[in-house]
Amino acid sequence: MPLIPAPILKRFAEDILLAAGVPRHKAELVATTLVATNLRGVDSHGIQLLTFYVDQLLAGEMDAQTDGRVVSENGSCLLFDGQNGLGQWVAEICSDHAVRIAKAQGIGMVVARESNHFGACNWWAQKMRDAGQIGIVMCNASAIVPPWQGREGRLGTNPICVALPGPWLLDMATTTVAAGKIFKARFNGQPEIPAGWAFDAEGVPTTDTEKAYAGMLMPLGGYKGSGLAMMVEILCGVLGGGAMSTQIGGIRFRGRTVRVSQTFVAIDVARFMPREEFEARMEWLVQRIKSTPAAPGYEEVLVAGEPEWRMEAQRSREGIPIPDGNWESLVKTAERVKVEAPAV
Amino acid sequence: MPLIPAPILKRFAEDILLAAGVPRHKAELVATTLVATNLRGVDSHGIQLLTFYVDQLLAGEMDAQTDGRVVSENGSCLLFDGQNGLGQWVAEICSDHAVRIAKAQGIGMVVARESNHFGACNWWAQKMRDAGQIGIVMCNASAIVPPWQGREGRLGTNPICVALPGPWLLDMATTTVAAGKIFKARFNGQPEIPAGWAFDAEGVPTTDTEKAYAGMLMPLGGYKGSGLAMMVEILCGVLGGGAMSTQIGGIRFRGRTVRVSQTFVAIDVARFMPREEFEARMEWLVQRIKSTPAAPGYEEVLVAGEPEWRMEAQRSREGIPIPDGNWESLVKTAERVKVEAPAV
Repeated sequence: MPLIPAPILKRFAEDILLAAGVPRHKAELVATTLVATNLRGVDSHGIQLLTFYVDQLLAGEMDAQTDGRVVSENGSCLLFDGQNGLGQWVAEICSDHAVRIAKAQGIGMVVARESNHFGACNWWAQKMRDAGQIGIVMCNASAIVPPWQGREGRLGTNPICVALPGPWLLDMATTTVAAGKIFKARFNGQPEIPAGWAFDAEGVPTTDTEKAYAGMLMPLGGYKGSGLAMMVEILCGVLGGGAMSTQIGGIRFRGRTVRVSQTFVAIDVARFMPREEFEARMEWLVQRIKSTPAAPGYEEVLVAGEPEWRMEAQRSREGIPIPDGNWESLVKTAERVKVEAPAV
Repeated sequence: MPLIPAPILKRFAEDILLAAGVPRHKAELVATTLVATNLRGVDSHGIQLLTFYVDQLLAGEMDAQTDGRVVSENGSCLLFDGQNGLGQWVAEICSDHAVRIAKAQGIGMVVARESNHFGACNWWAQKMRDAGQIGIVMCNASAIVPPWQGREGRLGTNPICVALPGPWLLDMATTTVAAGKIFKARFNGQPEIPAGWAFDAEGVPTTDTEKAYAGMLMPLGGYKGSGLAMMVEILCGVLGGGAMSTQIGGIRFRGRTVRVSQTFVAIDVARFMPREEFEARMEWLVQRIKSTPAAPGYEEVLVAGEPEWRMEAQRSREGIPIPDGNWESLVKTAERVKVEAPAV
């Protein structure tokens, strides 16, 4: 498996996006955020997404030109219409609005409808964190998850992400795993996935990668995961006035637009206490958690964000390993838009 | 098992609280909310809590007289000091503040520190719902849950509750089950609990009720449940400047105060769309979810809130079944404060 330095991968991704008709500043944002996600080890949300984005762009199913528009701004609340623009660009604009409103009001909540896939949530939550705020990002997604006790997809993986001043960062799907983990297993020819990840198309639990790919993801912990996914659907799709449940498309589905909604909540910690005090409290809490004696079979207790920060340090030094299946898919995508792959 | 009409149970609870020194308006609130929780079938958070509250009151470890105080109000954000008052009373005041601020600003976020156990979260989330708002309530709790990969309690059951205009209501602990379910099994002499609910005191999974009672609850779905519990701890304990992790007491622990923090977020849906439109969208979504064909072994798909609303209708008609263990404990508590139990 080749180890590719992040700058080379980013340049390759940017060239592909430019060739697919994306304006340079947006291509740079998308390439930067995708490769940043690979650096964190979250390969399901890294450059493997490019293949899908290019499919959408070449099919004319996503508008790389639009900047979207503010529908309304009212106190702490802003409603945004993404106008089927690039998800990353919608998120960039909306997280800026959330930061601005939180500075003025203490809290800013921006709900964007008619958006597209924006990669991993954490990039935008971290933008709010960098402004001294608690950043919460959620989005709805393709209805590939059955509600608890059901056997057809009605909800998405609907992730929740929270970043803040301090050594902790949560970014989780409300399913047992993100859909990208199953895509990744399939891209790379792994025939089996762990139990508890997915149902087949009939709603029967499966460990067969192909059946899972054609099937549905399991809600986290059963009915509670279903409830959390609904919460996200409500705070994104219902409140934003956009597509809900099966009205939502997806990056794997051609012939329709994606129409996801994304919500960005920024909370200015300084309205409650000085930022330095908040950070000190976070550090105390994280140390308190990490000081827990490890359970049998484990070496240490990790908090959310820690595995990814470790991976980021390693991959920044050593490069990003791209499995053969992912690389071939990326090279094929590059060929479609007549971009030459870097030698690796 | 006797079936007790709600008004009789409420009167009994109120008399006990009055006799334990709680002012009448507060005794009525606590009794009303506890019995309302029994009506919903959530017996773990109903009148069985009275025994613990009376323990606290008679030990002088909770101040039934104080009304707490506003520490600061700044834009959408309010910080409250519960001053070790009754949790239900703190929640009543704080949810009113959240509603008021959301009406003025679109969003209100109130964080209360130095509070006490307030029963089930949903009562206060529903107060915000009744004002046409999305109500979100969270609280931290006794550190009886180990972080993922750990084997000592560091986090609480840390529930998340969301109520809104529409037929859906989420109220869930971030553990597989709420601690009260294990208390209830023990009160009623059930020797075994289901697998996946708890660890013993050494961090080994157990189905033995006594060992679970002396042990720890499991985070929902493993590391993601741990992450959600931390999120709640941060939005309550860290942001509110109160007790965190093992600094928190608990209703079962004498000789120290409880010191929990509670967070109330109100979002005025009218800042995004007319309330009627939001409700219509919620109804469409809930119907879309409920129309999912049932998985093998199930008859129908239910959404969050539905089982409790059904139980509430039934128990309002038929009365509340109180298991013998709970009733004996309640009668003993009444005897401590010289209150006579109603004939049942």
